[in-house]
Amino acid sequence: MATALAAQAPPPKLGEALTILQSMLGDRLSTAHAVREQHGKDISYHVAGLPDAVAFAESVEEVSEIVKVCARYAIPIIPFGTGTSLEGHIAAPLGGLSLDVSRLDKIVAVHTEDLDAVVQPGVTRKMLNTHLRDTGLFFPIDPGADASLGGMASTRASGTNAVRYGTMRENVMALQVVTPDGRIIRTGGRSRKSAAGYDLTRLYVGSEGTLGIITEVTLRLYGIPEKIAAAVCAFDTLEGAVNSVILTIQLGIPIARIELMDDQQMRILNTYAKLGYPQKNTLFMEFHGTEAGVKEQAEMVHDITSENGGGDFSWTTDAEERTKLWQARHDAAWANKEDSPGWGFWATDVCVPISRLADVILATKEDVQKEQLTAPLLGHVGDGNFHMTIMIKPDDPEYLARIEAVNGRMIERALAAGGTCTGEHGIGLGKMKYLRAEHGESVQVMQDIKRALDPQNIMNPAKIFGPSEGPRAQT
Amino acid sequence: MATALAAQAPPPKLGEALTILQSMLGDRLSTAHAVREQHGKDISYHVAGLPDAVAFAESVEEVSEIVKVCARYAIPIIPFGTGTSLEGHIAAPLGGLSLDVSRLDKIVAVHTEDLDAVVQPGVTRKMLNTHLRDTGLFFPIDPGADASLGGMASTRASGTNAVRYGTMRENVMALQVVTPDGRIIRTGGRSRKSAAGYDLTRLYVGSEGTLGIITEVTLRLYGIPEKIAAAVCAFDTLEGAVNSVILTIQLGIPIARIELMDDQQMRILNTYAKLGYPQKNTLFMEFHGTEAGVKEQAEMVHDITSENGGGDFSWTTDAEERTKLWQARHDAAWANKEDSPGWGFWATDVCVPISRLADVILATKEDVQKEQLTAPLLGHVGDGNFHMTIMIKPDDPEYLARIEAVNGRMIERALAAGGTCTGEHGIGLGKMKYLRAEHGESVQVMQDIKRALDPQNIMNPAKIFGPSEGPRAQT
Repeated sequence: MATALAAQAPPPKLGEALTILQSMLGDRLSTAHAVREQHGKDISYHVAGLPDAVAFAESVEEVSEIVKVCARYAIPIIPFGTGTSLEGHIAAPLGGLSLDVSRLDKIVAVHTEDLDAVVQPGVTRKMLNTHLRDTGLFFPIDPGADASLGGMASTRASGTNAVRYGTMRENVMALQVVTPDGRIIRTGGRSRKSAAGYDLTRLYVGSEGTLGIITEVTLRLYGIPEKIAAAVCAFDTLEGAVNSVILTIQLGIPIARIELMDDQQMRILNTYAKLGYPQKNTLFMEFHGTEAGVKEQAEMVHDITSENGGGDFSWTTDAEERTKLWQARHDAAWANKEDSPGWGFWATDVCVPISRLADVILATKEDVQKEQLTAPLLGHVGDGNFHMTIMIKPDDPEYLARIEAVNGRMIERALAAGGTCTGEHGIGLGKMKYLRAEHGESVQVMQDIKRALDPQNIMNPAKIFGPSEGPRAQT
Repeated sequence: MATALAAQAPPPKLGEALTILQSMLGDRLSTAHAVREQHGKDISYHVAGLPDAVAFAESVEEVSEIVKVCARYAIPIIPFGTGTSLEGHIAAPLGGLSLDVSRLDKIVAVHTEDLDAVVQPGVTRKMLNTHLRDTGLFFPIDPGADASLGGMASTRASGTNAVRYGTMRENVMALQVVTPDGRIIRTGGRSRKSAAGYDLTRLYVGSEGTLGIITEVTLRLYGIPEKIAAAVCAFDTLEGAVNSVILTIQLGIPIARIELMDDQQMRILNTYAKLGYPQKNTLFMEFHGTEAGVKEQAEMVHDITSENGGGDFSWTTDAEERTKLWQARHDAAWANKEDSPGWGFWATDVCVPISRLADVILATKEDVQKEQLTAPLLGHVGDGNFHMTIMIKPDDPEYLARIEAVNGRMIERALAAGGTCTGEHGIGLGKMKYLRAEHGESVQVMQDIKRALDPQNIMNPAKIFGPSEGPRAQT
């Protein structure tokens, strides 16, 4: 995982393939080190594996042609959007071509009457919402980064709104995909439901670029609620905060966002974003609905938090104030880095059935304290999903090994509770052994599918299932 | 499709396989004609293809052992729950074994705190809801029949509540599946979201028994709303009713049910269920929420219907009255059969983006009138899904051909509008050519998956993609 990868020769026919791609793309094919580094290294703890070259595609036809060339010469292809994934998804441990689709950034259609939009994969979530501004509609899925929608589909991303609006699993209606042999196919459709054949849309969503390249995404949109109100509520104990969340979910209150930050995370956010909240375990919440509906929800949740040691709600109904609040939440990764200058971080991501959330969080906190690690906690706790962002002391392998052990125990705890090793980040390079622990024999079925759809193993190889050949050194 | 199937020899090693199964199952293996007929013939227009034998399994281990025997001798396996599917899913055009899982009918666990339940595949939706009665929870998905939950997962079923609660796609969290070589695997999990590997759960949901046999289903449950109110509203024009639905959906009003019945369907239902509603185009609606929330939703919808020529709401808040209302709706297929004694019916099932619903319905009604067919209309119109139940005159091939043509034109219209040939019934034997029209090249990808996971093509062969060998006569 975090260990350096052994040296390996480049793909044998690489030179020939690059010559063809160069004549096709001109200066949109780059072998410059800086470009390769920018495409092979993410902000996670994973060791970079640089691609041999980077291609900047500008149309689906071009993606198809590039893939055909790579298929002919068995060159690995690593799809690239904004590079904001967190489990080494963009690394090229076997070398090959990083296929950057960020220039496919057109919003193809917005069907306001049907509440859907068709976008190219390089469109980011913020670009889409800016474009939608005058329609009264919005797209809710919001991972921390301003990620590309193609990348978000590939990693089955979610974010703070998932508790009410679901994840990319629920919100991708249809896809256009370039297959590993360069065919352009379409999956799904624009009707709200269908029983026509295998659900390929949801097979590609979350397949992390290992089955094909997403070149178009059709997304569900939602009407901007009549009323939106955000509230912040501090608790004396972490348990009180978590139990409030559990009860809110169990009662089926349609809260739009309910995010937990522990006292340490609040201290860091207060400093980073110049906020003045108490340095306590805190819930950030948002209510969507009609005027009356929001009032009713808020009163119900306030009753719950009061009974669990929560203080008064600090309200922000002003749109700008709300944006500031949620931007601070989204910037947590950067805030944590700034708080520990020069340190890296290990973004953990377990998710458990809601009834087990308090146990798993408290046992994990205890473990972190015992190991004397710095690990602010925050989470999409309405989904049972939380992140301990464990800070990595530079150049200290023993320290890293302790983090890896804490992460492993946290995942074991989550799996024992019926949960998952990753709520929203994906497997990438980082969680391959836990995928097997979680899914057992069915990983074989996933691999049967991978082999059937990508027999040469050129699509983002070595991810999810591990390398079938030995990995190769970064250069 | 509706034409008789050509004669074909039984699977070559059938006798040997049945001898082994007989010794394993005793009298739970049947070759009696009546049992085979009950398992090979559904209530649809499809010609029966009887299995050579029927096995009644009582445990997942037994399912696995039966599948291993069939795999060894390459005997087709047709999974059977309640036999209420509508596109010939249970027919055995290539012969083989109907594997009846209705005796796997245990409710394995109800996790009230996490709002989920684990059930065996033979549990029906009504059995589950009866079991849940004292928990304050319910399972919303309700196709017309009291179908088995394994079958509902296999066909990606939905029903009247899907507009608010989604279909089986959204409500199956995890599965246990016996693969075509007899392995027992688990997919998904009990956490609300996960980004761990390929979404096999949603691949098996809707795969119509062609990739394996579902032996356990984990389902999302919901709290019974504080307030439930049902209303009936009659319209002078079909257009007014449909436009009311479109506007309700576009405004994002969280209505729980909104079902359309045309004047002809209302006449039939009034007679069958002894109801006294006006013989007009009518919406049946249901509102779920808090006391105040239901009132607010109902007022908003009433404003919409009034502007579109709808009459006053006739309210039924009493639980028994509501049950009677929805039972009548669910019994529509039977009511239609009783209204045309001796006739069969062709259950159509298109689904379109909501903005196109009025066009497609009105054009289809016109076509039906031109062809002088009897075809009451009803539908889950909040999803854009409707059924023209076209009645089949007995022993009149010319009449049947006209129905087939009308159905074909309706599907073409739906596909041109961006919709699907089947909202909830599935492909089965009936819609194979439309699957290709709808999904084009991606059907090849589906078939690649089918070949990879079931290389012998023994799992419900000839469905979805058509026979790879010639079909064989019913006996």
